[in-house]
Amino acid sequence: MSMDDTGSAFLARKLVPALWELARLEAPDASPGPSDWVPASVPGAVQLDWAKARGLPDFAHGSNVTLYAGLEDFHWLYRTTVPKVELKAGQGLFFFCGGVDFECEVRMGGSVVHRARGMLTGFDLDVSAAKAGAPLEILLKPAPKRAGCPDDRTQASNVTKPAVSYGWDWHPRLIPLGLCEETGFEVRPLAHLKYVNFSYELSDDFSVADVSLSIESTVPNPRYTWRLRDDSGVQVLEGVGPKARLHGPRLWWSHDHGAAVLYTLEVELEGGDLLRRRVGFRRVRMVMHEGAWEGAVVFPKSRENPPVTLELNGRRIFIKGSNWVNPDIFHGRVDMLTYRPLLGIARNANLNLIRCWGGAPAAKEAFFAECDRLGLLVWQEFPLACNLYPDDAAYLELLGREARSLVRRVRQHPCLALWVGGNELFNSWSRMTDQALPLRLLNKVCYEEDRGTPFLPTAPVEGMGHGDYRFWNAGRDVFELFQSSACTGYSEFGCPSTSPVDYLKAIIPDDELWPARPGTSWTVHHGLDAWEADPTTWLCTNTLRHFFGEPQSLEDVVQKSNWLQCEGYRSIFEEARRQKPKCSMALNWCFNEPWPTAANNSLVNWPAKPKPAAKFVGEACRPILASARIPKFQWARGETFVAQLWILNDSARPCPSGILRAELVVGSSRTVLLDWAFPEVAPFENCAGPQVSGLLPSTPEGSFVLDLSVAGRSGLSSSYRLSLRGTGPMEPPAAP
Amino acid sequence: MSMDDTGSAFLARKLVPALWELARLEAPDASPGPSDWVPASVPGAVQLDWAKARGLPDFAHGSNVTLYAGLEDFHWLYRTTVPKVELKAGQGLFFFCGGVDFECEVRMGGSVVHRARGMLTGFDLDVSAAKAGAPLEILLKPAPKRAGCPDDRTQASNVTKPAVSYGWDWHPRLIPLGLCEETGFEVRPLAHLKYVNFSYELSDDFSVADVSLSIESTVPNPRYTWRLRDDSGVQVLEGVGPKARLHGPRLWWSHDHGAAVLYTLEVELEGGDLLRRRVGFRRVRMVMHEGAWEGAVVFPKSRENPPVTLELNGRRIFIKGSNWVNPDIFHGRVDMLTYRPLLGIARNANLNLIRCWGGAPAAKEAFFAECDRLGLLVWQEFPLACNLYPDDAAYLELLGREARSLVRRVRQHPCLALWVGGNELFNSWSRMTDQALPLRLLNKVCYEEDRGTPFLPTAPVEGMGHGDYRFWNAGRDVFELFQSSACTGYSEFGCPSTSPVDYLKAIIPDDELWPARPGTSWTVHHGLDAWEADPTTWLCTNTLRHFFGEPQSLEDVVQKSNWLQCEGYRSIFEEARRQKPKCSMALNWCFNEPWPTAANNSLVNWPAKPKPAAKFVGEACRPILASARIPKFQWARGETFVAQLWILNDSARPCPSGILRAELVVGSSRTVLLDWAFPEVAPFENCAGPQVSGLLPSTPEGSFVLDLSVAGRSGLSSSYRLSLRGTGPMEPPAAP
Repeated sequence: MSMDDTGSAFLARKLVPALWELARLEAPDASPGPSDWVPASVPGAVQLDWAKARGLPDFAHGSNVTLYAGLEDFHWLYRTTVPKVELKAGQGLFFFCGGVDFECEVRMGGSVVHRARGMLTGFDLDVSAAKAGAPLEILLKPAPKRAGCPDDRTQASNVTKPAVSYGWDWHPRLIPLGLCEETGFEVRPLAHLKYVNFSYELSDDFSVADVSLSIESTVPNPRYTWRLRDDSGVQVLEGVGPKARLHGPRLWWSHDHGAAVLYTLEVELEGGDLLRRRVGFRRVRMVMHEGAWEGAVVFPKSRENPPVTLELNGRRIFIKGSNWVNPDIFHGRVDMLTYRPLLGIARNANLNLIRCWGGAPAAKEAFFAECDRLGLLVWQEFPLACNLYPDDAAYLELLGREARSLVRRVRQHPCLALWVGGNELFNSWSRMTDQALPLRLLNKVCYEEDRGTPFLPTAPVEGMGHGDYRFWNAGRDVFELFQSSACTGYSEFGCPSTSPVDYLKAIIPDDELWPARPGTSWTVHHGLDAWEADPTTWLCTNTLRHFFGEPQSLEDVVQKSNWLQCEGYRSIFEEARRQKPKCSMALNWCFNEPWPTAANNSLVNWPAKPKPAAKFVGEACRPILASARIPKFQWARGETFVAQLWILNDSARPCPSGILRAELVVGSSRTVLLDWAFPEVAPFENCAGPQVSGLLPSTPEGSFVLDLSVAGRSGLSSSYRLSLRGTGPMEPPAAP
Repeated sequence: MSMDDTGSAFLARKLVPALWELARLEAPDASPGPSDWVPASVPGAVQLDWAKARGLPDFAHGSNVTLYAGLEDFHWLYRTTVPKVELKAGQGLFFFCGGVDFECEVRMGGSVVHRARGMLTGFDLDVSAAKAGAPLEILLKPAPKRAGCPDDRTQASNVTKPAVSYGWDWHPRLIPLGLCEETGFEVRPLAHLKYVNFSYELSDDFSVADVSLSIESTVPNPRYTWRLRDDSGVQVLEGVGPKARLHGPRLWWSHDHGAAVLYTLEVELEGGDLLRRRVGFRRVRMVMHEGAWEGAVVFPKSRENPPVTLELNGRRIFIKGSNWVNPDIFHGRVDMLTYRPLLGIARNANLNLIRCWGGAPAAKEAFFAECDRLGLLVWQEFPLACNLYPDDAAYLELLGREARSLVRRVRQHPCLALWVGGNELFNSWSRMTDQALPLRLLNKVCYEEDRGTPFLPTAPVEGMGHGDYRFWNAGRDVFELFQSSACTGYSEFGCPSTSPVDYLKAIIPDDELWPARPGTSWTVHHGLDAWEADPTTWLCTNTLRHFFGEPQSLEDVVQKSNWLQCEGYRSIFEEARRQKPKCSMALNWCFNEPWPTAANNSLVNWPAKPKPAAKFVGEACRPILASARIPKFQWARGETFVAQLWILNDSARPCPSGILRAELVVGSSRTVLLDWAFPEVAPFENCAGPQVSGLLPSTPEGSFVLDLSVAGRSGLSSSYRLSLRGTGPMEPPAAP
């Protein structure tokens, strides 16, 4: 039997329909009886199959998730049978598995024919010789749990199994197992492609692409032809060998900087099959920000910060992004239907990059295909997060193999912008260092397989900042915090909010709904006791009390926490943009969530319901807008309000000169503070304007608004709703 | 012919004596006439042979070095003949070259039989079939000079040729060429060893060493035996295969922490030759300093500093070291006789680490053997320094090959502590970044070949500091500067001094000797116009003026500049030690020099003459000493002198309690300031004591002394000579 460890999951599959069953084993070598088998979905997860067959209640409701505890500690046995197929001359039957969560052995004819470990490395078995109806079994091992660790993420600290499912401040402890990637039988020509690598080098002026195509196949000296077609089907390049030159390639751009141009690659193996894939041309670099080298040298002199400014096709661009987590607890049931609405929301929020956080499973091919299509850049991490991953040989072997599989798959996508070793590894809660062999190994793998794409050992690196994850902490709100920061990039920052009232009612039993109490579904769904010292995180009741006094109702908490999240995120994104060019990225924590949370820093509720903040982030990330640097969120009655006016321009076009009107709106009273005649603002430049000020009324009023508008260009308007300290009820935030 | 790119220069050679000649070619393909040939020394340098034959004056005197300009732009032809040797059955004749500076082709029988590029990768040719007396020619290409660069170090920015000889602030522009490593004919068994790798893993408690031995040989399936002997010749381990376990290995320690224990490895190839080599067991790590992880988390949170605390055999040690540069302009004439006296001085100065700076050629085997023997740790850099080395494929190929050769050679030495990509690459004067492919490649090569040894991409990394290189700058002396710094390591800092009067008289013509004027030999020998804005660098006349008024004579300058260097270096080394554990290293710039300088930051004049500061550094680096934190070097008459008393202990032994007496000595008057009854000071700990103070006299006096003595333990005494501002002549410093 031939085996393929190339992680070739991205070759299009045409699987023969198959029925799968599953049994939970009370011992590794137990033989299930006829009644022990339950129907299985593949790809999927054993917990989902088990719950469906045995009538476990929905884990997402109330505290039901606790009923799923311990299922990951069993051995599980999948079974199916070899299908009856008519093989023509030159054809074979293959069993393909795109990846397993997390470790298994494949048995046929009473013996083990393959062992696999890891979600990223697929395998391929030639089963042509097997009889139709012969059983194929896959014995799944229990979830890995590092010996001596408590029941938390550290149990995943010596494997590539994503740490998140071991429990996180927004993820329940629920550790999936199963055949999580495309798996099944396939009829193929015996002469077939196992891997195709499309790579290229762009000339300095981008006028020429020198394309290299290499293939791995089942044929010793394969003969093949290949071609590129543009999006109208016209052939623009034909390869007769491994090299060809394309003149005038149309470049792939992130959506905010140009068209996400894709070509279709066709590779035809003589006497074998045909592969079609979408490819694109782009060059990505991490470069120093403007002015980085120009500072004075003061002794003793350390190094300069590492570069975190992304250059796409020769253009330094400002990254407006968000942190992507697993969109479902169960990777096995994630597919294009999961990804497409979420990525559409990201695109509509004017985000240009998705950071695929290392705590979660790496996304499937559909994710990258959709990012390619939408013009969304991807920052891809390896499966390391917040742990001290060891230098030991067994772990390095596993990591090296899995990482290589991931790189060989994802490097084919023009959306790929950056490889990162993992999340927050050089921080005290992880305690890895630059000397850690896993990270040195990842650098090596990326160098060998994809050295044209930048690599960072972790985020944050020096100069970058993570956090805070609270609207208010240590006496400061996020307006103040970020205006006094000077990072090169903000790759994580969070402002929490609760989920909508209806959403909460769907996940929290009526009798627990209000007031939110610890130890109830509020805790299970991360509203309370989720993170750090404040027991009201992520509901943030203490923050709400600070600004607004005791919350009056569930509706009140939902409204106010979303107000803080909306204005908080807007404030941070716009401030990060004002700190250009030293600062070159802003990515909020987080974009999505794996299940319904009661409260979270996310912009989108599971599975794909935008929270109000998604719209505010979208406004803050418009290519061109009128913006105000507002020193703080809450103002006192009778205080003089001040703010500084800005025009922010991240686009490749100049922003024509105009009149920016700043108005203060308190209740029904509207006061013009200033008409600022701003000059033309060059492409990729911001323009700092004058400070405006206005006296706030001394009568209690819950909120007021700073309205910025540019005559004749409504697309540039911004409207900030701020808090006016008072004792009365607050107004609702501007409708999302 | 077999070729060997393994850089196997460390296999002991028994070369057949050969005569070499050399001709300078007016064109690459010129045929030298009989009178064009001059005798050549191999190893050596074409410039030295040429100068000797053509009567060029000594380049080290006066401004003669300028007469050597341009010799590096010629092609040079070496020639010798195949020796007449009696080959027994099973023997062959081989031509071996340990490395070439910098590029050559080897010709025999009218054709090119080998091409080589780089000083680090040797080659090996089987010439058994050649007739005795047949000519062997080596055509040397001109020194590489990157197109479009000015006549400075940037000309070496796309090759592995050391940048230093293209001109540095303490190195003349004189670019060697030649056969710089052991080169010649050798009779060997046809079955011979090409490379032997001795590696091992120590158990966590160091009680067991699992040894691996691998060999490369000319035999397809070699059979071999090997053994280890201790230093009394007793066999302690016998290997019958590639693996063996040694119980109770005696560890190799740096001299200040234990014995530098070496074993003798013997490897015997069946039917072939025997290799003997000194090996040792040690484990080196770079770890975080104590307390590094315990700081408060303040958002936005960046990463922690990278670890630069060296752990040897499980013990965090404080690095007291110095920066090693090429000990001669001509690497070809450097040998054990060059290294031994220099390394002896370093050892006697209580230094425990030598940083082999990346601007200079990597040292020969004799250097590492001597460091092994003396218990001196080595920080080895790759040949990159202060340049922007490119990502291009040709450079990466050369660098990768040369780096691999270096790693495979040096990893065999227990003295090896650290691999570093190169000098100051992440600074504005170099402009490389973490994304630079050369540095990612070096990380990969080190991971593949020697992942047990730490790797840094460059120095400084974040937290470490380089500089200053002046005793006084921007209104502060080095006492003040370093007491207000908080680096994790000081891997370069300099205090310049002039060379001794007699030494100056030997290199500077009488008519230029005094006063020192720019454009004379003073400039050629780096006394003037050497570095940065101050034209009096390194003589530092402006600094001397600041402290002491107009220099009166050459003798006055020599005496005062050495005083500053002595007290400056002592002050910095002791202050760095006081900043333990956050700070874990202090390495002054620089230890030695490649030729006679008029003034320099070095501790030792070329070739191996210690300057007075060497003794002061030795005192500051004693394992245990009484020390004072003195706020500044120069005090005013009538001012109250203050200092804080310390006991510094870098040793593995406790320092017993005692009485430290602090006395102020002004002229003939001696005043006891305090008797401090200090407690026992634990191993590797410092003890901060009380502040002492005393009124300085108001009468002019050139200097005064703070004497620290511990009753009954004269080895702990320290005596600081400080400046008392006055108009009269200064006293000489304490005799070195």
